[in-house]
Amino acid sequence: MSSSPTDRCASRVTAFALALFLGMTQYAFAQTDPLPSWNETPVKQALLDFARDATTEEGPGFIPPDERIAVFDMDGTLIPEKPIPLALIPVLDDIQQAVAAKPELAEKPAVAALLKGDEAALHAAGEQGINDLIAVATDGRTTEDIVQNVRSLVDGKTSARFDVPYSRAVYQPMREVIALLEANGFTIWICSGSPLLITRELSQEMFGIPPERVMGSYVGTRLDEQDGKTVLVFDGTIARLNDGEGKPVTINLAIGQRPAFVGGNEGGRGDIAMMRWSMDRDGPSFQLLVNHDDESREFAYSEPDNYSLNAAKEYGFHVVSIRDDWKTIIDRK
Amino acid sequence: MSSSPTDRCASRVTAFALALFLGMTQYAFAQTDPLPSWNETPVKQALLDFARDATTEEGPGFIPPDERIAVFDMDGTLIPEKPIPLALIPVLDDIQQAVAAKPELAEKPAVAALLKGDEAALHAAGEQGINDLIAVATDGRTTEDIVQNVRSLVDGKTSARFDVPYSRAVYQPMREVIALLEANGFTIWICSGSPLLITRELSQEMFGIPPERVMGSYVGTRLDEQDGKTVLVFDGTIARLNDGEGKPVTINLAIGQRPAFVGGNEGGRGDIAMMRWSMDRDGPSFQLLVNHDDESREFAYSEPDNYSLNAAKEYGFHVVSIRDDWKTIIDRK
Repeated sequence: MSSSPTDRCASRVTAFALALFLGMTQYAFAQTDPLPSWNETPVKQALLDFARDATTEEGPGFIPPDERIAVFDMDGTLIPEKPIPLALIPVLDDIQQAVAAKPELAEKPAVAALLKGDEAALHAAGEQGINDLIAVATDGRTTEDIVQNVRSLVDGKTSARFDVPYSRAVYQPMREVIALLEANGFTIWICSGSPLLITRELSQEMFGIPPERVMGSYVGTRLDEQDGKTVLVFDGTIARLNDGEGKPVTINLAIGQRPAFVGGNEGGRGDIAMMRWSMDRDGPSFQLLVNHDDESREFAYSEPDNYSLNAAKEYGFHVVSIRDDWKTIIDRK
Repeated sequence: MSSSPTDRCASRVTAFALALFLGMTQYAFAQTDPLPSWNETPVKQALLDFARDATTEEGPGFIPPDERIAVFDMDGTLIPEKPIPLALIPVLDDIQQAVAAKPELAEKPAVAALLKGDEAALHAAGEQGINDLIAVATDGRTTEDIVQNVRSLVDGKTSARFDVPYSRAVYQPMREVIALLEANGFTIWICSGSPLLITRELSQEMFGIPPERVMGSYVGTRLDEQDGKTVLVFDGTIARLNDGEGKPVTINLAIGQRPAFVGGNEGGRGDIAMMRWSMDRDGPSFQLLVNHDDESREFAYSEPDNYSLNAAKEYGFHVVSIRDDWKTIIDRK
């Protein structure tokens, strides 16, 4: 039995429509593993289950689209934070120039530690130290001056550990988690203790996250005039230290709701507060804590009291062992 | 000459593809006036020209897509700010309860003014007064308690001036400007002196602007625990007054670039700084200042020294006369 020309034509129209439809939805139906850099461990399975359940309507894990908010810490969670946090690389350049002009600035512990390359002393100076560095680096300059060279400075330095430019030293498994969440309708934000203005200059290229979805620490700025034009200059005060219990405050101001997904890391006690705040939302949520336990492939470090790992155990957060859960750490291609 | 079945089939496939294409692009090719509530005045023409030029590649007015940022003040720019700013309606409810519990709170000028309905005294208390009101209204409560009833309280009150619920008392001509800009690839933000947490509860419904694109004033919050769950509570300090020269600071923290379009209004001197900061960007920009000069259809009020109108003249901002430029003010449908 042969079909009529009209039937054949109808089926060609159908085939054309189907091809269009398949073309548009190929990613949704892709059969490939969305987390190829992860070993086949319970954490990987939990991530896949969460993403599937979040989008399964009428299931117990369903999350309405406008509640699909994911927030990630940056240093130690998306990129290595050793030997120094990424955003300090351009700051180092500025500091060296500032100290050359005003030698007494080197009396600040964080400044001295940075110039000597003394990692332990820099770590001891903490977030306060990082903000001291920013204040020294920004003194008298405009916000636009500060961000102008961030990309080239970062691109120009190579990670000794991973033999790629710093801007490409991103944890490949976390890139895949971001892509998995995005494919399932999540909006991705960064909530970092690092300086906001520098972090957001890198976020689009490094993580595909636009500047307006970056939260961070910042020093105060005020409107000024230079050569007849309005500019923002730094006033030397520390306006916000975005760490620990300050992170939920920042997220609430920026987004106005508790995130359904939070990624953070142990090492600096900085991410547990936002994880707890996420866990306590009405509805399903997921908290991912990266444990730096891989001396041979990345770094191994922990908090003296194991605060973050203990909290993860108490509250049921998912702990990622870099050693056991990650097949690849940095994609050198 | 008759075409073969195959030819006819091919033309049906073409027609199908064409129908899809037209269906997708109908808005781009719509011939209707995008600003029907505006009279045919130079301001209307300037708005249409700006939107056209911003999207005309290689023209002198072209703005790259990621620089198409538009920021609007809210009170007096998108909605009437008389007799009191919209966001104070839910606050009034909270204040009355707080004063009943602690009568000494009524000694604050703004609180007394609000309870008496004394518009002049409330105006005299200024933004500081508004923030005093917020501090009294929020004392000891969580951020989630505060926002819970915002919508129903606003929806439940009717504007005496315009005979519609407050949430529908939006300037129709400004709705059309927002739609015109969005159709030309602009991302729209609100930068208001009103309390952030309340403003953003209304922005989606009233203006189609999602909560994460709202900037406003806020009091300090800190993480606390209630019944074993983490919550954010107010600490009674004023953390940010988002007005005047503070607006460029806030915009830079939230977005990280100067907006190409700013809409504001005269009456409280609050929007000139962000307009100047927008004007001083590298590239084309547009500043729109609403002048409240229509006693019979809306309200007429001005600053004693005409600060904003004088600045508009000096810097070449576009001044909207409500009386002359707007055909319709509020769409009552």
